Amino acid sequence: MRILLTIEYFGKNYSGWQRQKNALSVQQILEDRLTEMLRTEIILFGSGRTDAGVHALGQKAHFDYNGTFPVERMAEAANTSLPYDVRIRSAEIVPNDFHARYSAECKTYLYKMYISRVSRPNKDDGFAQIPYSPEKLDFSLMERACRDIAGTHDFRGFSSTGGGTKDAVRTIFDARLERCGEDIFFEISGNGFLYNMVRIIAGTLAYVGLGKLPPDAVKTVLAEKDRKKAGKTFPAKGLYLIDVEYRPRRIILPTPSKTL
Amino acid sequence: MRILLTIEYFGKNYSGWQRQKNALSVQQILEDRLTEMLRTEIILFGSGRTDAGVHALGQKAHFDYNGTFPVERMAEAANTSLPYDVRIRSAEIVPNDFHARYSAECKTYLYKMYISRVSRPNKDDGFAQIPYSPEKLDFSLMERACRDIAGTHDFRGFSSTGGGTKDAVRTIFDARLERCGEDIFFEISGNGFLYNMVRIIAGTLAYVGLGKLPPDAVKTVLAEKDRKKAGKTFPAKGLYLIDVEYRPRRIILPTPSKTL
Repeated sequence: MRILLTIEYFGKNYSGWQRQKNALSVQQILEDRLTEMLRTEIILFGSGRTDAGVHALGQKAHFDYNGTFPVERMAEAANTSLPYDVRIRSAEIVPNDFHARYSAECKTYLYKMYISRVSRPNKDDGFAQIPYSPEKLDFSLMERACRDIAGTHDFRGFSSTGGGTKDAVRTIFDARLERCGEDIFFEISGNGFLYNMVRIIAGTLAYVGLGKLPPDAVKTVLAEKDRKKAGKTFPAKGLYLIDVEYRPRRIILPTPSKTL
Repeated sequence: MRILLTIEYFGKNYSGWQRQKNALSVQQILEDRLTEMLRTEIILFGSGRTDAGVHALGQKAHFDYNGTFPVERMAEAANTSLPYDVRIRSAEIVPNDFHARYSAECKTYLYKMYISRVSRPNKDDGFAQIPYSPEKLDFSLMERACRDIAGTHDFRGFSSTGGGTKDAVRTIFDARLERCGEDIFFEISGNGFLYNMVRIIAGTLAYVGLGKLPPDAVKTVLAEKDRKKAGKTFPAKGLYLIDVEYRPRRIILPTPSKTL
């Protein structure tokens, strides 16, 4: 059977989602624990990579398993031996043709920034600092630029791989900004994202707010597909993968009905 | 002259505010950096101790200094060589009879909790977990108990030192609870606090909400002064010293007027 996990992690201590040599990834931590617990080699298929230092509230990953460990107890059992900064929030059975990556219809990211000349110890691990006085920032300009993001566009100008990307057309369903004192939250949902896309858009919006880029910078980058017209790539620590959504799917009942 | 610092720190990596042998304190970090920068031995007098792991947004500390380093540049200069989790937010000149501890009129603490059976990696460093399902908690009972805190009472039942405390009478100006989804914020202001007092009150309120203590538990502990009738001491990592306030004081102009 195929099992879908919803996973939360704080990215600071990890080299990102994807398993790799010589660095500790979230995927490896989870695969190792599940393999030990389920006594069979577990290979996870994530909804996508997250870079080193990026956090997740609702990363998704599936794996195939044909043993007898009850699915409804997997999350709690695995969590007892996971490090505190990685948690399985739920485990559920999904159809065999479900795929955490290829079945995904919508991903939502949150980017957290704060504007302050003095860095803030109580925020610094999970926010990007904009090191200016708050009065230097025109938030209404950021909001205006933000309204240019939604829609179906070629986003290669907002990608670190740039011109090398073959298909850079993505649909952004929604992009929103919220300000709360010196904190600025940017939330974006779409059917897919290019490499570093959210971090470059966050940097571009901040630069527009600071007057380092013109108010129509987002429009210009989309039209000219030129990475150099966008703001800098903002740091990984401000980025959170909030949710991955799938089309409504038939939920298969957990094991009891199968083992009766 | 006497200089007052406003200090922010994230407590995770420190043994608390107070300098001590064999463990790294925030006071030591700051004294060492200031002593090096100002080329004279600096001794800080804090508004009070914070325990190991407790955070601060607005800790206050004063020191005496008669050198020529401009006060208005001290914070920024010191911050360049402080670890990222400790920052001086401001430095200002105060009268020579001002004392960061003895002149304090009001301290405000915030306690952050979240209720979730699964611990939350993105919160766990700065919140206390209440490891239950959210539906197990009756928040209105917590609010009711919270209303019994304000006022002038003998708080020794909410102190870890318990009966040994000579004068345990304190005035709490305000105590408030706020809920936002699974997060619960408890803010309390008073003219002084006993050892572990905020953490024990937070634990007591949570226990009332969970039905582990009766709704009038706060009243009972205040009346009977019995630590055993209160909830457990909640963890340090949820506690933030938000602000220390002083009576209106004459602000002495910074150095330029003195060096002219």
